[in-house]
Amino acid sequence: MAVNKKYIIGIDIGGTKISAALFKDDKILKSVKIKTPQKSRREFLNKLGVLISEVILELADKKEISGIGCGVAGAIDLGKGIILNAPNIKILNGFNIKKWLERKFSCEVRIDNDSRSFLRAEYLFGAGRGYKNIVGMTFGTGIGGGIIMNGEMVYGINGSAGEVGHMIINLKEDFESLAGIKGLRRLGFTDSLKTYQLAKLGDKKAKKAFEELGRYLGVGLANIINILDPEVIVIGGGLSGAYKFFLPAAKRTMAKFIFSPESRKKVKILIGKLGENAGTIGAAALFIK
Amino acid sequence: MAVNKKYIIGIDIGGTKISAALFKDDKILKSVKIKTPQKSRREFLNKLGVLISEVILELADKKEISGIGCGVAGAIDLGKGIILNAPNIKILNGFNIKKWLERKFSCEVRIDNDSRSFLRAEYLFGAGRGYKNIVGMTFGTGIGGGIIMNGEMVYGINGSAGEVGHMIINLKEDFESLAGIKGLRRLGFTDSLKTYQLAKLGDKKAKKAFEELGRYLGVGLANIINILDPEVIVIGGGLSGAYKFFLPAAKRTMAKFIFSPESRKKVKILIGKLGENAGTIGAAALFIK
Repeated sequence: MAVNKKYIIGIDIGGTKISAALFKDDKILKSVKIKTPQKSRREFLNKLGVLISEVILELADKKEISGIGCGVAGAIDLGKGIILNAPNIKILNGFNIKKWLERKFSCEVRIDNDSRSFLRAEYLFGAGRGYKNIVGMTFGTGIGGGIIMNGEMVYGINGSAGEVGHMIINLKEDFESLAGIKGLRRLGFTDSLKTYQLAKLGDKKAKKAFEELGRYLGVGLANIINILDPEVIVIGGGLSGAYKFFLPAAKRTMAKFIFSPESRKKVKILIGKLGENAGTIGAAALFIK
Repeated sequence: MAVNKKYIIGIDIGGTKISAALFKDDKILKSVKIKTPQKSRREFLNKLGVLISEVILELADKKEISGIGCGVAGAIDLGKGIILNAPNIKILNGFNIKKWLERKFSCEVRIDNDSRSFLRAEYLFGAGRGYKNIVGMTFGTGIGGGIIMNGEMVYGINGSAGEVGHMIINLKEDFESLAGIKGLRRLGFTDSLKTYQLAKLGDKKAKKAFEELGRYLGVGLANIINILDPEVIVIGGGLSGAYKFFLPAAKRTMAKFIFSPESRKKVKILIGKLGENAGTIGAAALFIK
């Protein structure tokens, strides 16, 4: 993956966790993660700084780092590197993370949204390989998305294309409030991992909750398919591991609402192959030309 | 507009009317329209045949026609020219309109969806000129759409990208059932033109109905903006003339639901400039290369 013999750092900043990884060529050499600090921006930056330092601890010379790629869960001014609206990490709203990283680590920094990073990774190295019209969806605390049409990432005019989690599906609330982890919370399940464990043990209420999420997911998927007619939708994010509990219901609902008979027959819904690492891989891949 | 010195016919088949026009160079030489026959496919084809013959009546030699461009309101197999799903002209479902036109008029035929034809016309010659990231929306009996990203029309993998009218916005019904003319009918106004006249005369109920439509439209617009982040959305179609009665409410609702602060500030909602002719112009423009 590397553009040269130097190292690249990939960072994935989400509403629940931050991951950072050190890459050389195609390989992850080291990877660390922490819970996303939510108390203050100061605390957040302290911990992010420590996390990155930890990743590059073994490097003899920090000059060997040729770039930092960083994916953030939110709307970002891609040129300036300012976080405009991060609903699940509000302490970062208005912050220029690009400038901060550049100053602190003295290297080139490229910023993108976390969901596009996920999609880039799955497109280049994962479940999306070989497809040219793909939508990526991160199904976690928030619901994010990325769009590749004719092999090209769609950024939109302000860099905020792909914000599928914010489409309104019940006239007043958005997709991400109803599906995803927020949806689970509404149904009384505050801990998504625990709910998943319960479902695996056969707990009926937990299984029902995932089915309910699946129905909302199906509406969102159908909308995306009606608007973009992609070949494949790749789902990742923290909740995607529980797919067997929500995907059947999602597919049933989706089929009901897809307009084009051809799309209904042919569209593929796939689960990402790169797991937790997709975010850092896709952020580091911002340095692939 | 013409690719050579010959004539091109542009056809626009919608749920309410069919228009056909004869083009030479950039100009419409003749244009005719009829109500869409809905009784049987046989009646439809008879009347369509007569309509086209009327358009080319004055031509001495039918061989002077170099092509027919045809936009149809529905999901179409663009390669084969088969109408897969036309919810507002159901008698055409499964019909190969391309082959029929080729046989009947012995010339090259190119098919597209009517909303992409509208968008192509407005992009090349109308309100969308100069923009590279545009969404077109036809607001009439149905609600259709077209997408241009980075100056390229987005067709999707099965040719059905842009079907914005079929996104689900209240968990069970689609955008086009709630907004557009169907939305007006739900509110008890069976004749949209009459409702418009009433609103112009200051009728409170009619004005309220348009405002209600506007709120649904605002949800749809916000969803499109959150997913595609376009520079501009151009609205056309039979109902667009009444924009001053629905657009203010649409913009208020839209602003509430747009996620990116930048998009909220910058996105432009424009009314098409080509009026009724946009459909035939955009269909004929299928022959611009």
